[in-house]
Amino acid sequence: MDWLDFVKWDRDGLVPVIAQEQGSGDVLMFAFMNRDALAETARRGEAVYWSRSRQRLWHKGEESGHIQQVHEMRMDCDNDVLLLKVTQKGQEGQEPAAPSIACHTGRHSCFFQRYEDGAWRTVDPVLKDPESIYK
Amino acid sequence: MDWLDFVKWDRDGLVPVIAQEQGSGDVLMFAFMNRDALAETARRGEAVYWSRSRQRLWHKGEESGHIQQVHEMRMDCDNDVLLLKVTQKGQEGQEPAAPSIACHTGRHSCFFQRYEDGAWRTVDPVLKDPESIYK
Repeated sequence: MDWLDFVKWDRDGLVPVIAQEQGSGDVLMFAFMNRDALAETARRGEAVYWSRSRQRLWHKGEESGHIQQVHEMRMDCDNDVLLLKVTQKGQEGQEPAAPSIACHTGRHSCFFQRYEDGAWRTVDPVLKDPESIYK
Repeated sequence: MDWLDFVKWDRDGLVPVIAQEQGSGDVLMFAFMNRDALAETARRGEAVYWSRSRQRLWHKGEESGHIQQVHEMRMDCDNDVLLLKVTQKGQEGQEPAAPSIACHTGRHSCFFQRYEDGAWRTVDPVLKDPESIYK
């Protein structure tokens, strides 16, 4: 049996994926993969997701340059969620000082809104203007 | 507008939730909440999920004693995923030596299967016999 067959794909043929930064342990983002995306991720060693909005494979960083190098892939006890340990790469030519940006808003992590006293507050800074990321 | 209304609930009225251990940064588990579960989590300061298999609120630890104390709740850029920073409590009477067990298999984290050379391998130990957890 193929390792891809052990994943319990949902009714849309997808599996939720958590991307966690190697080293810091920060949870960077959450996305989905289909079977092809997971196979591609394993083959490349870089995160390839399934874009639900665009309905196509999405090699993370293909537009932004914010590639995710995959160090480890884990699966949960129900075989229906994946966890990737990644290094979040910046845009070429900006190394090594480039900040680690996973979010399309130009922030480090997508989880930048914190619950405080009955409201969601944005607590993390924009590290790079999104307009200069997607040009 | 109520803070609960900012969450983009999916077609089943649910939102995916990642539970991450405060301190270690380990991703412990993945589950879902509905509106009532999220409201209860905020009120109690302990994780309350929606059990899809049992179709009812699930106060994590209600049977196992493995309560999750919630330090922080975060929401992602699309308002459709939550991240909890938690302390994973053990069973009463076992503190302070009790290991941190989030998984129903008796392991620290639900993500104990690692992809290696075309296969999923169980790489984390069982810390406590599940039969002694759910008695």
